[in-house]
Amino acid sequence: MLIVMNVGATQREIDGVVCAIESLGFRAHPMPGASRTAIGVTGNQGAVDIGHFENLPGVAEAVRVTKPYKLTSRDLRPEPTIVDVGGAKIGGGSLTIIAGPCAIESREQAFSVAEAVQRSGAQFFRGGAFKPRTSPYAFAGLGEEGLKILAEVREKFGLRVVTEALDESTVDLVEKYADMIQIGSRNMQNFTLLRRAGRSRLPVLLKRGMAATLEEWLLAAEYVMSEGNYQIVLCERGVRTFAQHSRNTLDLAAVPAVRRISHLPVIVDAAHGTGRNYMVTPLARAGVAVAADGIMVEVHPRPDEALSDGAQTLTFDEYEQMVKQVRAIHEVIA
Amino acid sequence: MLIVMNVGATQREIDGVVCAIESLGFRAHPMPGASRTAIGVTGNQGAVDIGHFENLPGVAEAVRVTKPYKLTSRDLRPEPTIVDVGGAKIGGGSLTIIAGPCAIESREQAFSVAEAVQRSGAQFFRGGAFKPRTSPYAFAGLGEEGLKILAEVREKFGLRVVTEALDESTVDLVEKYADMIQIGSRNMQNFTLLRRAGRSRLPVLLKRGMAATLEEWLLAAEYVMSEGNYQIVLCERGVRTFAQHSRNTLDLAAVPAVRRISHLPVIVDAAHGTGRNYMVTPLARAGVAVAADGIMVEVHPRPDEALSDGAQTLTFDEYEQMVKQVRAIHEVIA
Amino acid sequence: MLIVMNVGATQREIDGVVCAIESLGFRAHPMPGASRTAIGVTGNQGAVDIGHFENLPGVAEAVRVTKPYKLTSRDLRPEPTIVDVGGAKIGGGSLTIIAGPCAIESREQAFSVAEAVQRSGAQFFRGGAFKPRTSPYAFAGLGEEGLKILAEVREKFGLRVVTEALDESTVDLVEKYADMIQIGSRNMQNFTLLRRAGRSRLPVLLKRGMAATLEEWLLAAEYVMSEGNYQIVLCERGVRTFAQHSRNTLDLAAVPAVRRISHLPVIVDAAHGTGRNYMVTPLARAGVAVAADGIMVEVHPRPDEALSDGAQTLTFDEYEQMVKQVRAIHEVIA
Amino acid sequence: MLIVMNVGATQREIDGVVCAIESLGFRAHPMPGASRTAIGVTGNQGAVDIGHFENLPGVAEAVRVTKPYKLTSRDLRPEPTIVDVGGAKIGGGSLTIIAGPCAIESREQAFSVAEAVQRSGAQFFRGGAFKPRTSPYAFAGLGEEGLKILAEVREKFGLRVVTEALDESTVDLVEKYADMIQIGSRNMQNFTLLRRAGRSRLPVLLKRGMAATLEEWLLAAEYVMSEGNYQIVLCERGVRTFAQHSRNTLDLAAVPAVRRISHLPVIVDAAHGTGRNYMVTPLARAGVAVAADGIMVEVHPRPDEALSDGAQTLTFDEYEQMVKQVRAIHEVIA
Repeated sequence: MLIVMNVGATQREIDGVVCAIESLGFRAHPMPGASRTAIGVTGNQGAVDIGHFENLPGVAEAVRVTKPYKLTSRDLRPEPTIVDVGGAKIGGGSLTIIAGPCAIESREQAFSVAEAVQRSGAQFFRGGAFKPRTSPYAFAGLGEEGLKILAEVREKFGLRVVTEALDESTVDLVEKYADMIQIGSRNMQNFTLLRRAGRSRLPVLLKRGMAATLEEWLLAAEYVMSEGNYQIVLCERGVRTFAQHSRNTLDLAAVPAVRRISHLPVIVDAAHGTGRNYMVTPLARAGVAVAADGIMVEVHPRPDEALSDGAQTLTFDEYEQMVKQVRAIHEVIA
Repeated sequence: MLIVMNVGATQREIDGVVCAIESLGFRAHPMPGASRTAIGVTGNQGAVDIGHFENLPGVAEAVRVTKPYKLTSRDLRPEPTIVDVGGAKIGGGSLTIIAGPCAIESREQAFSVAEAVQRSGAQFFRGGAFKPRTSPYAFAGLGEEGLKILAEVREKFGLRVVTEALDESTVDLVEKYADMIQIGSRNMQNFTLLRRAGRSRLPVLLKRGMAATLEEWLLAAEYVMSEGNYQIVLCERGVRTFAQHSRNTLDLAAVPAVRRISHLPVIVDAAHGTGRNYMVTPLARAGVAVAADGIMVEVHPRPDEALSDGAQTLTFDEYEQMVKQVRAIHEVIA
Repeated sequence: MLIVMNVGATQREIDGVVCAIESLGFRAHPMPGASRTAIGVTGNQGAVDIGHFENLPGVAEAVRVTKPYKLTSRDLRPEPTIVDVGGAKIGGGSLTIIAGPCAIESREQAFSVAEAVQRSGAQFFRGGAFKPRTSPYAFAGLGEEGLKILAEVREKFGLRVVTEALDESTVDLVEKYADMIQIGSRNMQNFTLLRRAGRSRLPVLLKRGMAATLEEWLLAAEYVMSEGNYQIVLCERGVRTFAQHSRNTLDLAAVPAVRRISHLPVIVDAAHGTGRNYMVTPLARAGVAVAADGIMVEVHPRPDEALSDGAQTLTFDEYEQMVKQVRAIHEVIA
Repeated sequence: MLIVMNVGATQREIDGVVCAIESLGFRAHPMPGASRTAIGVTGNQGAVDIGHFENLPGVAEAVRVTKPYKLTSRDLRPEPTIVDVGGAKIGGGSLTIIAGPCAIESREQAFSVAEAVQRSGAQFFRGGAFKPRTSPYAFAGLGEEGLKILAEVREKFGLRVVTEALDESTVDLVEKYADMIQIGSRNMQNFTLLRRAGRSRLPVLLKRGMAATLEEWLLAAEYVMSEGNYQIVLCERGVRTFAQHSRNTLDLAAVPAVRRISHLPVIVDAAHGTGRNYMVTPLARAGVAVAADGIMVEVHPRPDEALSDGAQTLTFDEYEQMVKQVRAIHEVIA
């Protein structure tokens, strides 16, 4: 259920509704908007009697929500969410560029990429310390040592650090060193991890699962939000199809589709979404043209020597050129 | 096999090689390039002895081709093909916009849309006279009457007319009235139709099949080319996946993938590729950003009254706005 | 619309209703059932006034049909259709085995396989004279010469011959020599071909398209039936997915799904459905276990020398063993 | 790398090789076969020098393995693995039936189903205590209370209990009460969970991910095995495709494909694989016909009142009938 407050409702009235919700054993999710506050109600097994709430002071209306997602929905919050990552914003019309190597390999490698990222004017640095690998025998990242290098990158280059957590205990570590928790495709329905991220103070970058419908993706975000963390950025990264010319099939129609039903920002991962170096720049441009809130790419000083995913990684020159083009396209559609 | 002529080879030398090929019972496909001519050899069941050709006057080298496509390949022709449609060009760096109603419903409707298309500066008008419909009971187009209206549009508005043919006898009719033959997704592997189009003097717009790999798509083009018609434009229009938020999943990575292996121009159908009105403009922008040679969209004075595919059709205002945006994006990447 | 006649309706009453339907410019499709006759009405653009028919003599009721398929539907005909192929039956509880080489290569090859097929007790021989090939340069069948060999097989071994037609003119030829017209996956939405088959006196084997939904498949059958040919056997042959371990993903759930909504028989092509020799027998068994009306397989004296699709072809020994197993499974579920 | 011991190698020689492997910092996985023992080597980042091992006493040969999976491969162990679940066996030619409700709802419900399962002669009872649900607001199982009911079922009915674990802490609980740990589709690439299950003394039922290739599925098993737990049963449960007539598309060709490359048993989940009650029995029969080692189905006294997945659940009568049929089919192919 969704409770919409009056335009002029006071904080006291809002608190009163929250209190009434909680006294029934449910959970209240107040979400202030530009003009008025809406309060999501979750935790109810069946239908809730609307009469409980409609007569409380400050309430404009109580709306039964039949869609399976509530907190992620525009019904709850018509204005776009702007996610704050250590002071830098994602969403709301700006263009976010998140760049970095697939995996952190060494301080030297990370610093070299970070300098290129900083020079391009991007504010976000990505790099994996914990890598989910299909094979148990593949390089799985430097672990906490990698996180420490990421923290140094933040310090030295003033970039916000985005990095993946794989389970509850790596969330603990990521919280210690980074600015944003990435949840990968393979974990999009790892509900234990989603709930843990929902109890974090850090914003969450939630990648779409390899075969996830829009509804499943939004419900994964709903898991995070239902624990109280509303700072989520969705990331389209391609779905699995019969097509063999790219590693995944980047589903750019998902961007307007998400925009239509959700207030959350959505970005496009042009590296994993294609898996081919020569496709990254065209698809990054397309991601911006389709009006995503940002793009994510991989950069490496020598892609062919990268320990992970070199085939989809840009050189510094390619990266710089790409940034110029996506900025110009963003101007066109702004 | 592919025979590459010397840079300064004379027409007489080229004719000599063609003659030698044909005398062995094979088929010769001379394709003049910017600097030199290459001659494709088809019709051989097994391997051909390279020695037959390498010593002929004017021959630089004879190359065995192992890929299943030959004539569509960049190996045969490194320069991009520019397709000439009644004097208007597709490919080679320009931006082609093909617009019109899904189906021709009446002269009034066609003229009204044509005026909007002409006003936007587009050179190509599309409209179906023969509509392949999933159900035998759905509106299947006006037939030859529709073609006559299309011919009037060409006359009155100076637009080139693109329209679909379904079989050999409709190719005969389309040849009579239109400038370019469209072959639809459902017919991408209708080899009788492909061969017939290959014997036409009109250029061909070849849509990708709903579940076609890149190789199958290029081999469909190869069917047309193997009959002697080299004027083909490929059209990505979305593939079928599990995703339900759009009618098809537009596979924009196919554009750089085609570009890498083929010299044929490739455009993006943002209408069928999405099936949702609100997605057409963002995906048309993305199609241009990914460096397609053009886009195809549907326009109708009153989309909700359209007899076919109204859900994916732009109004005149939406169309005009879209054209401005894609032109600006094309400038950025040119 | 569907008009259901009384149990005891006379032929004269049935004729009267047909006449009334046709006098309104529609098309009548009388389909006699075990206890009563139903008459499908097609050709109406919009809704038809039920009042026209309900008061005619012999009419039990007139039912508006909202599903897009009518003639293929169990609503029209609750009893299963039994297709008659030159006196041999498909459907209605018996187990049909259709076997033969992918392509007819020579009289010797065809006779050798036909003998094995006859020996196994199967009644149907398949073999391609016109092969739709992805590449224009691949072996495309012997054409009419192949059909003549098929006709000899019929004569000499008493088998019914099933063979593919690619277009209107090959239907003409197939009608001359064979007992059943196969329409292949790539042509499932070749509506010109479907309509032509609908005007044939021969029964039709309609393969499912590579990415066809159930509804699209039934509507393809509807095209054939709407022209008056009600003798159709559906054939599941796998759909295209991301899976790489088999050539296609055989969708056996389609068999009970078809059974639930349609009266048409449905068989399973275990050869094209898998594309791997070692999978053919297990999946043929599974096809029978799922209660398909029959199976289709490829047999060749020396599969590794086959000119087409050798990789999915059984040897004589493997074929014989498979037939024993599927017969035993059919007993179990009968 | 794989070290194959001589047929008559002594335990002492085997221990010597294990010791040599570990002294190089690698991990040894001895797997005794019918005639000889093979020892898998994992933990090596790059290639290992074969010379280290070939001259050790008892070694027949050392083989470099280039496939990404090793321990799951037939190269390591040609004989089929027979998994021991509390004394009951899965694999090796017998037919395993795993049945029970989707979710444990109450002692009464569980006992009622268990009685029916026991009566049918099946040895395995399944039931969820921890349910991974797409929506955070759906019924997620009774938790430890559910496990206690499962333990009572085991006690009272002598059935082995299979139940799902979602993360490390639920593995701890499942180990306390059940006989086999199920890892669900959504967690097939939850590597933390896989590693934890690899350190369990309980056998593991590993479901295929919704869009997992065969290689990814085997590599997920490899994660479990690389931690030392070799008791794994694979479970095909359908993949996600465009098809809408069933909840998932059951990919039965995966059964012979797994069999060909791996020694692990593989079963078929006909409930989740179809999601439709009327398809469960036909597809369970097909699963046995394709030679799976067993099937998994859902049974409930009143499917329409089930708290989870009622739509794919059999009644007691349907279940009993199904068991008879699959047993008879198993006889045919044994």
